[in-house]
Amino acid sequence: MDTHQLTRELQVKNKSKIIMLVADGLGGLPMEPGGKTELETARTPNLDKLAEQGVQGASIPVAPGLAPGSGPGHLGLFGYDPLKYVIGRGALEATGIGFALQPDDVAIRCNFCTLDSQGLIIDRRAGRISSEESAQLVVKLRDIKIPGVEIFVEPVKEHRFVVVLRAKGLGANVRDTDPQITGAAPLDPHADDVASQRTAEVAKEFLAQARKILAGQPKANFHTMRGFAAKPNLPSYREVYGLRAAAIAVYPMYKGLARLVGMEIVGKSQTLDQQIETLGQAWNDFDFFFMHFKYTDSTGEDGNFAGKVQRIEELDAAIPRIVAMKPDVFIVTGDHSTPAFLKSHSWHPVPTLLVSNCCRPDGSTQFNESTSIRGGLGHFEAKYLMMLALSNAGRLGKYGA
Amino acid sequence: MDTHQLTRELQVKNKSKIIMLVADGLGGLPMEPGGKTELETARTPNLDKLAEQGVQGASIPVAPGLAPGSGPGHLGLFGYDPLKYVIGRGALEATGIGFALQPDDVAIRCNFCTLDSQGLIIDRRAGRISSEESAQLVVKLRDIKIPGVEIFVEPVKEHRFVVVLRAKGLGANVRDTDPQITGAAPLDPHADDVASQRTAEVAKEFLAQARKILAGQPKANFHTMRGFAAKPNLPSYREVYGLRAAAIAVYPMYKGLARLVGMEIVGKSQTLDQQIETLGQAWNDFDFFFMHFKYTDSTGEDGNFAGKVQRIEELDAAIPRIVAMKPDVFIVTGDHSTPAFLKSHSWHPVPTLLVSNCCRPDGSTQFNESTSIRGGLGHFEAKYLMMLALSNAGRLGKYGA
Repeated sequence: MDTHQLTRELQVKNKSKIIMLVADGLGGLPMEPGGKTELETARTPNLDKLAEQGVQGASIPVAPGLAPGSGPGHLGLFGYDPLKYVIGRGALEATGIGFALQPDDVAIRCNFCTLDSQGLIIDRRAGRISSEESAQLVVKLRDIKIPGVEIFVEPVKEHRFVVVLRAKGLGANVRDTDPQITGAAPLDPHADDVASQRTAEVAKEFLAQARKILAGQPKANFHTMRGFAAKPNLPSYREVYGLRAAAIAVYPMYKGLARLVGMEIVGKSQTLDQQIETLGQAWNDFDFFFMHFKYTDSTGEDGNFAGKVQRIEELDAAIPRIVAMKPDVFIVTGDHSTPAFLKSHSWHPVPTLLVSNCCRPDGSTQFNESTSIRGGLGHFEAKYLMMLALSNAGRLGKYGA
Repeated sequence: MDTHQLTRELQVKNKSKIIMLVADGLGGLPMEPGGKTELETARTPNLDKLAEQGVQGASIPVAPGLAPGSGPGHLGLFGYDPLKYVIGRGALEATGIGFALQPDDVAIRCNFCTLDSQGLIIDRRAGRISSEESAQLVVKLRDIKIPGVEIFVEPVKEHRFVVVLRAKGLGANVRDTDPQITGAAPLDPHADDVASQRTAEVAKEFLAQARKILAGQPKANFHTMRGFAAKPNLPSYREVYGLRAAAIAVYPMYKGLARLVGMEIVGKSQTLDQQIETLGQAWNDFDFFFMHFKYTDSTGEDGNFAGKVQRIEELDAAIPRIVAMKPDVFIVTGDHSTPAFLKSHSWHPVPTLLVSNCCRPDGSTQFNESTSIRGGLGHFEAKYLMMLALSNAGRLGKYGA
């Protein structure tokens, strides 16, 4: 179902304010049978109080049983069907470092690699060279010039970097050059459609120049190219919802994802406290605020159960300052679960809480995995959350007469 | 998912009887934080007793967060995907006054308006003239003759009336003539496709004759035309479910909606008591009975919490007489929520109860919003309710071997 077809037609403008607080990887698991999850273990008096006023449910990020990455996880929360809107790998990598992609760009994920004297790959990650070494080589690659094409080369982490080619008429349907095995030569870029032939030629020329520049490097004497991708064509929050939307995030990936749906990045917060300050400063200029809290995910990824509990308690302590802004709709959710037990993103539904003056509270007195699965929002696909946000804010008119 | 593809293939005939009792706008909200909804406040011993025998769930009329009008609300309950089957505005207006549209009809919503001496609209609603005045003018407009076209002019309410043009080959893709602002002249009907050109010409001729007839009227000296619509092409209950279906409703809109899906309108009930009498009289002639109770919606629309509570209790008191008919499947539901708190249709899921001898009771001892969100039917889209009704009646075969 295309929810945007409905929200475009039925959107209503008013003065309401909506806050969506995303605790990344919020959902968890017990570490042993019969145990509690991170969220159940944490002391969360403020979230529990909100639970009494609100309605909760279990958000299915994409589909039952599917663990999403950050891209689809956030697209779902933003109301963009993550199975319809796919962000190509190169575009996601560029977005993740805060690179503002433009419509004529093709973004490419690159890995430094090590070739032997015959030009065969002996290490597909160039010995995982340090981010510092890698960044220096990236600067050297900025000398590459190709007529008619603007080129950006940006470091990511360790052996990874991004190349963005900017020119009219560059298709992105080009195959990876990484042969996926060692002992083989890197492949030439190969276009899979006519519109991408020029892109393949430009990439080939880039690689030829890079080979000369990197020759003589002990580890990173060449690189591969993968995930050629254009800027995803996402309609904007303003168009599909009629919302002026602000993103208040610390990490580039989440700012980037927000930018892709037309949110404005506000502030330069480095801490949750600063994010809340930014929220206050931006309050009058926007209708919708996406606030991102990273550490529930990173502690989960580290398998650090106690650390995740502590981060949840830190978030809980900040809730009263957010509530004090008196949003008309306040949503607390996550883009997916990241149980410390699994040390990875997972498919488990995400506890999601919505508070408004017409939300129909469901009688919960706590907010966690166990309460959310019995909540008044039921089990719902994340892509519907924005419809619920709009309705609760009085921003969605009646469908049909 | 097209449920009708399944029900067409798998339908089974037997002697079972299904009753669907629709309490319009049944779902509600508390009036203050911590309060109870209308349904939770009402004393409903009979519904609560049914809850013990039945299984309940939260019906999502169309999609999470979407408040439907009566049209999509009922289509969902009838098992017709309300996003696939759209009833045009003119067709819904005609349906709402009980006009039986035929396949060659184009229905048009009309508003009397006031023109100044230069032919510019100074009041788009003709001072909201009374229904009595309006009806007299409608009778005058019945003098309009156009060769080859059968014309119906029917009063609705105040300045509103309906024109139905009946002739072979009339498309309905014609633009509104209402310029939506005052100080502008009404627009000419304009066809957006070839098939609708004749319709636009007929409409233009109708307007020309109407202008002469209405000239000299102090307020309603002309009218606009909006929402040109053909009869929606809905497959019938008999075809998609194999059911002989009867509608027992008081208000024309709900009789009209039932007629659109091929139900037969039985009786001329004006009260719930009369509806139950009609049910008894029609019992042997039909397999499925749609009973509509309006007042849970109208009291909600009025913001009359106590009134809605009283109407629910009135409905509850009638339950034993319906149960006494011994239906094989008895469903109590609503087409949407109409909380008195919001004075409007809302998106909140609707408490829905199904009783049969094989429904798998869920242990509820009450029937309301709080119990339905935790019921055995879960949260489900209304369009699946008819599949549940058929299965519980033994009228739906196994899918696949």
